[in-house]
Amino acid sequence: MQIIDIKDAGQYLQQTVKIRGWVRNQRKASSKLRFLIVRDGSGDIQAVAFKPDMEESEFEKVKALTIESSLSICGIPREHPNNPGEFEFVIQQVEILNLAPEYPIGKKAHGPEFLLNQRHLWLRAPRQNAILKIRHTVYYAICEYLNANGFYRFDSPILTPNASEGTTTLFEVPYFDLGSAFLSQSGQLYLEAGIMSLGRVYDFGPVFRAEKSKTRKHLTEFWMMDAEAAFVEHDENLRIQEELIRFVINTVISRNEKELIILERNPEDLRKADAPFQRWTHRQTIDFLRSKGVDIGYLDDFGAPEEELITAESDVPVFIEKWPKEIKSFYMKRDPANPDLVLGADLIAPEGFGEIIGGSQREDDHDLLMNRIIDEGYDLEFYQWFLDLRKFGSVPHSGFGIGLERLIQWMTGVRHIREVIPFPRMINRILP
Amino acid sequence: MQIIDIKDAGQYLQQTVKIRGWVRNQRKASSKLRFLIVRDGSGDIQAVAFKPDMEESEFEKVKALTIESSLSICGIPREHPNNPGEFEFVIQQVEILNLAPEYPIGKKAHGPEFLLNQRHLWLRAPRQNAILKIRHTVYYAICEYLNANGFYRFDSPILTPNASEGTTTLFEVPYFDLGSAFLSQSGQLYLEAGIMSLGRVYDFGPVFRAEKSKTRKHLTEFWMMDAEAAFVEHDENLRIQEELIRFVINTVISRNEKELIILERNPEDLRKADAPFQRWTHRQTIDFLRSKGVDIGYLDDFGAPEEELITAESDVPVFIEKWPKEIKSFYMKRDPANPDLVLGADLIAPEGFGEIIGGSQREDDHDLLMNRIIDEGYDLEFYQWFLDLRKFGSVPHSGFGIGLERLIQWMTGVRHIREVIPFPRMINRILP
Repeated sequence: MQIIDIKDAGQYLQQTVKIRGWVRNQRKASSKLRFLIVRDGSGDIQAVAFKPDMEESEFEKVKALTIESSLSICGIPREHPNNPGEFEFVIQQVEILNLAPEYPIGKKAHGPEFLLNQRHLWLRAPRQNAILKIRHTVYYAICEYLNANGFYRFDSPILTPNASEGTTTLFEVPYFDLGSAFLSQSGQLYLEAGIMSLGRVYDFGPVFRAEKSKTRKHLTEFWMMDAEAAFVEHDENLRIQEELIRFVINTVISRNEKELIILERNPEDLRKADAPFQRWTHRQTIDFLRSKGVDIGYLDDFGAPEEELITAESDVPVFIEKWPKEIKSFYMKRDPANPDLVLGADLIAPEGFGEIIGGSQREDDHDLLMNRIIDEGYDLEFYQWFLDLRKFGSVPHSGFGIGLERLIQWMTGVRHIREVIPFPRMINRILP
Repeated sequence: MQIIDIKDAGQYLQQTVKIRGWVRNQRKASSKLRFLIVRDGSGDIQAVAFKPDMEESEFEKVKALTIESSLSICGIPREHPNNPGEFEFVIQQVEILNLAPEYPIGKKAHGPEFLLNQRHLWLRAPRQNAILKIRHTVYYAICEYLNANGFYRFDSPILTPNASEGTTTLFEVPYFDLGSAFLSQSGQLYLEAGIMSLGRVYDFGPVFRAEKSKTRKHLTEFWMMDAEAAFVEHDENLRIQEELIRFVINTVISRNEKELIILERNPEDLRKADAPFQRWTHRQTIDFLRSKGVDIGYLDDFGAPEEELITAESDVPVFIEKWPKEIKSFYMKRDPANPDLVLGADLIAPEGFGEIIGGSQREDDHDLLMNRIIDEGYDLEFYQWFLDLRKFGSVPHSGFGIGLERLIQWMTGVRHIREVIPFPRMINRILP
C-alpha cells in the first residue's frame, strides 16, 4: 500500500493509502463517530472513524488513542464535507506505534518557563511548527538572493583570538596551550579577507553574546548572516540590503501562506513593506525623537523604545544612516562630506520589530585604520592580518549583518525571540 | 561606462567597459607590450597593454603595477588570439586603487606553517579560490537535495549542557551562574526532537572537537550536516545517503568544471562514483582487512589506513554496516536479526578519502534507551528530555551526519583538510 505525506492527501482521493504521524487532537462526536487530527510534519488532516464502516477492533484502537500518540493509518482521503479545498481521511485500519501517557502541554495557558522546560515537546505545537517553517524559508530566501547576486558562502571561524566588537560580552574558551579563544560575535573581519579572493562573500552561522540582558530581544546564541562585497560603496550597500529584504518578504508571503494564517500574521502588513525603504540620517532621527518628547542628544545611540517610535508612522523599514563616529565601530569609513560621521546604516523594521540589519562601508585606508585600532586600545598584533588587507590591494568595500531571529520575528509577528529558534539559549537557560 | 564582471567579458566584445580587481600576475613581453592577469572573484582575464595604442601615461601606470595591487581598467574585451573560447582585455586606461608592496606569497614553494600564517592572503591563490568555490557548491548541493526531499532546516544549539558522544574531547565554556556549557559535537539529539514536529529535519553548522590530534584529517572546528527523519529505517537511511552523495557529485561536476581543472581533479574519477554504492557488513570488512594482512579483530574499530584499504579496489563509496554494539553509540538501534549488532553504517569515500558519513537507525524504545544511558554512566538528568521523545509518540527514525570538509576533500582531491575551510582551527592554531 502506498504511503503518502499528509500534505499530498488531495492527490489520492478515493484511493486506499497509508499515512503516519502523531495525534494532535481527538474528539468524540458520538458513540459511533470519532475525529482525530493527525499531523506528520508535512501537514495536518482530520481523520474520521465511523464505527459502522470499520472493524470493531479498529474502532476500539481509535478510542484508545491519546494526544501525541504515534500511529499509522490505512484509509481513504476525501474532500472535507464542510471546508472546500481541504481534505479529510476516512480511517479503515489503525496501527498504534506508541501510546503516549498524559501529554504535559495542555490547552490551558502555560507560563514561559514551563514551556521552555518542555521545549523538546513544545516544538510540536501548531504555532511553533509554523514559526520553524518560516525560519526555514527566511534562511534560504537570504541565501537564494545572495547566491543569485554573485556572493559566495564563506564560513567564518567561530573560535577567534580577538573580539571584533568590544570584549565585555565575549564567551571565553580555554584553548590547549594557546590560552583562550573567544566565540565569534561576527565574521565580518574574516569576510573582508574573503572578498579579496571571491569578490563577494557571506557567512551564515551562530554567533554568541555573553550579555547579561534578560529581555525578549536577547539570546546568548543566535544566527547571523554577514555579507561583504568588494567595490560596493555606501549607497549600493543600502540598495543591496533593501532588495534582499524585499525578496525575503515576497518569498515568505508566497511560500508560507498557511503558516502566516496559523500565526494570525496578516500578509498585507508584510506586503506594505515591499516598497522603497525610508532613509533618515542619525541627526534627522534624533530631531524626530526629540519632537516626540524623547530626551536624547546628537551623539546618543538609541534602544528598543526609540526604534519602535521610529517606525511607528512608517509601513516600510527605515535606514538610519550617517552616525556620529563616536558611537560606531572603528572599522567604519568616514563620510567624505563630514569626517565626524561614518558611512554606516542600521535598518529598523516596521511595526516595532526593531533593528534587523547593521552595516557600513569599511575603512580601506591602512594608516587611518591602524591609528583607530591603536586609539581604541586594541592589541595591534591581533589585527596585523586585518591591516594587511589594506596593504595588499585595498579596495572600497561594504557589508552588513542580518540578525536572523530579529528578521524572523518581524516576518512571523512573534514578539519574543525565544520562540523563533529551536532551542533558545539565555542567561539562565542551557537546557534542554 | 558600464562596469562588468570579468566572467561576463565575452558578452561585451568590442565594447568599451570597465573591470575592477587585482593583479594576479604581470609580465613584460617587450618594451612596448605588457600582460596582466587580472582577477575580480568572478574570474581571471589576461589584460593587454600595447604602448602604441595607449596614452604614454597609462602605459607607465601599467609598468608600475605590482602583484596584488588593486585597480580599475577601461578597455575592450576581445577573443583571445590563441585560446579559443577565452577572452582577453585590451587596456585603454588604468586607475591604480592601491599599489601593493612586495607580496609575501611568491612563486617558490612555501611551507604549510608559513602559508597558514598568511591564510588571509593565501586565500587569493587560484587553488584556494577554486576550493572555496567548490565548498560553496557542495554546501548548497546538500541543502538542495534535502530541501527537495521534505527536510526542514532546524538549527541545533551549539552551547549544550551535555555531550552527545564522549566527554574527553569537549570544549568547555563558563556559562554565567549555570556552571559550564560545552560546544556541540553533533546536533543529532536535538534533531530527534525536531522530527516530531517537522517529520524530517537537518542542521548544518560548525561543530567542535577538542582533540589533541595533529593530522591532516583533524580540525578542532569543522562543519557538519546532521539529518534526521521520522519513519525512516536502516535501508531507507542508506538509500537517502547514497542519493544525496550522488547528487552532490553531479552538481560539482556540472557547476565547477573550471575549478576542477585548476585543482587537476579529473571529473571522471568523481563520475565513476555516481553508481550503486557497495554495502559491506563490519564483519565482512574485518575479514577483508585480515585478508590484506591487517591485524584486526571482530570487535575492533578502524582508522584512516584501514579506510584507505577498504576503497582501494572500489571506484564507488562503501557502506560499512551492522557494527558490533560495543564500538558504537548507545543511541543506535540493535539489529533485530542479531542484537549484538547495531543498525549503523559509515560511508567510506573512494580513493582513500576516508569516512564521510556516519549514521544509524536510532533506538526508539524508552526502557532500552534509558538502560543504556545508565550503563554508559551518563547523568540521566541531562537525558530526560531525550527520553521523553520515546515516551510521547516514539516512532522508528534514522539519521546521519556528513562531515562537510571530508566530503569537500574528496570532491576537490585535496589531501589536507586545512585547505578546505576558510580559516582552519587546529590544536596549535587560532590565528588569523
